[in-house]
Amino acid sequence: MLAVTILGNNSALPAFDRHPTAQVVTMNEQIFLVDCGEGTQMQMAKYRIRRSRIQHVFISHLHGDHYFGLIGLITSMGLLGREQPLHLYAPALLKDILDLQLKVADTTLPFPFHFHPLEEDGIIVAEEKFKVHCFKVSHRIPCWGFRFEEVKAPRRIHPENCIANGIPAHFYDRLKQGENYTNKEGTLILNETVTVPAPNPKSYAYSADTMYDERIIEKVSGVDILYHETTYLKDLADRASKRFHCTTEQAATIALKAGVGRLLIGHFSSKYDTLSEFEKEAREVFAHSELALEGVTYKV
Amino acid sequence: MLAVTILGNNSALPAFDRHPTAQVVTMNEQIFLVDCGEGTQMQMAKYRIRRSRIQHVFISHLHGDHYFGLIGLITSMGLLGREQPLHLYAPALLKDILDLQLKVADTTLPFPFHFHPLEEDGIIVAEEKFKVHCFKVSHRIPCWGFRFEEVKAPRRIHPENCIANGIPAHFYDRLKQGENYTNKEGTLILNETVTVPAPNPKSYAYSADTMYDERIIEKVSGVDILYHETTYLKDLADRASKRFHCTTEQAATIALKAGVGRLLIGHFSSKYDTLSEFEKEAREVFAHSELALEGVTYKV
Repeated sequence: MLAVTILGNNSALPAFDRHPTAQVVTMNEQIFLVDCGEGTQMQMAKYRIRRSRIQHVFISHLHGDHYFGLIGLITSMGLLGREQPLHLYAPALLKDILDLQLKVADTTLPFPFHFHPLEEDGIIVAEEKFKVHCFKVSHRIPCWGFRFEEVKAPRRIHPENCIANGIPAHFYDRLKQGENYTNKEGTLILNETVTVPAPNPKSYAYSADTMYDERIIEKVSGVDILYHETTYLKDLADRASKRFHCTTEQAATIALKAGVGRLLIGHFSSKYDTLSEFEKEAREVFAHSELALEGVTYKV
Repeated sequence: MLAVTILGNNSALPAFDRHPTAQVVTMNEQIFLVDCGEGTQMQMAKYRIRRSRIQHVFISHLHGDHYFGLIGLITSMGLLGREQPLHLYAPALLKDILDLQLKVADTTLPFPFHFHPLEEDGIIVAEEKFKVHCFKVSHRIPCWGFRFEEVKAPRRIHPENCIANGIPAHFYDRLKQGENYTNKEGTLILNETVTVPAPNPKSYAYSADTMYDERIIEKVSGVDILYHETTYLKDLADRASKRFHCTTEQAATIALKAGVGRLLIGHFSSKYDTLSEFEKEAREVFAHSELALEGVTYKV
């Protein structure tokens, strides 16, 4: 199961009751927080996402609309007596900021806090059921996108067929890996007659803040859902480029070229009080485009 | 005119839709922001307080629930193209934090930003129409209270009486300072027959976070409105003291001994989902006690 819940979809500063960037990605019962603008912990309360369930936080870059809410979230976790570890993946300088803020408050976190600085493109988390890649995008300051992937599960046993074919239970683990079975009589039982494939692994990519950059295409290719920023409508391509941001048309072009399942667009400039034109423009290029709306969960 | 608008009244972390500490004090057309917990800029938008009107910000101490919203507010002011100066009065280390956060974002504020570190009790702002004192309170880390006072205006001219007594206009400034007038015939015109006193200057004191400390009494004595923290109800006096906080009874005792006009209580612990008991307990000691409720403006 893959789901993305939007907690904030606005760029730069809060406006029109839209909040700065934060998303919660749910994958195989794991909950990841991706960026954490000011007020994220209030948004989590509003949308009933428990702080305690988050074990991994990913921060794309150190513009405030992507991380000013993090120190509040972390200190709240501490005040609530959290004990389980928290892993933070972020540009290295964020550690200096957090350390200073904890120090001046004379605060020691009661839980293990693991900081993982982002240094180069590649796998940053590899667990049994999921892995996470980071990749550089093109912004005014160093900025990273993230790709979240389920690890393909082993094939699933079809118990009745196994029993009918006389396959002993101790062989099941090898069946799950795809092996065939040869019984005492020398008859070959083909794996696919006694197992079924696991569902295809799901994937999600988050482009963070970036100008149009085709190098991103291979990093996000084929994901089920791509979130790509679209700070401006297409008539402001010059402004977008000068400010290291994208337009609707550019985001949808990346989605199209990367062959993703679905595109979520967000990080809307505060100059826009309504958003419907964003969706319309993106769909002209890539039909499966949707607005990333606060409080909405997008599922695969 | 003196008014205090509460933007946040909760302690430590947001809960029950109560926000961390922030207040807006209006005095003689000046607007002061006192503390700035996470989400203050969103609360300001909600209660229609324009960021651009704030010229002075006072931060009591460096626990996050009193300042985590400041960097977001300041960077938003910058993004909105503010040009007028901003003055910040706060513990010195806050400057290091803000400087680091601006540096990693490669951000230069477009307006003059004046940082005034709090160092000792005394006057920190002295302008024509108001002045502000700071005073140390007793908390786990260095923490400051603030006292805001209107400067007493000159007496006001009663124009008809002046004309009837033949006082020339060029003498009005001296009348405003309280001088009598002697006319050409040698007759003494008493000042109080041709002027009226200006209204009594208003005053407001903010106790920040503190344990019960009678040294605060003289610092806040006689103010029209005292805000004093009451993190706990009276049955938790031990816990309050261990955590350098106060109970309802203690806050109301300070108000009573300081002879203030009215007491506002706030900084409620997140352990309480309702607040009515706070008001009841405070009023048992000091009748003019009121809850500091978010979105409410308290006027003198």
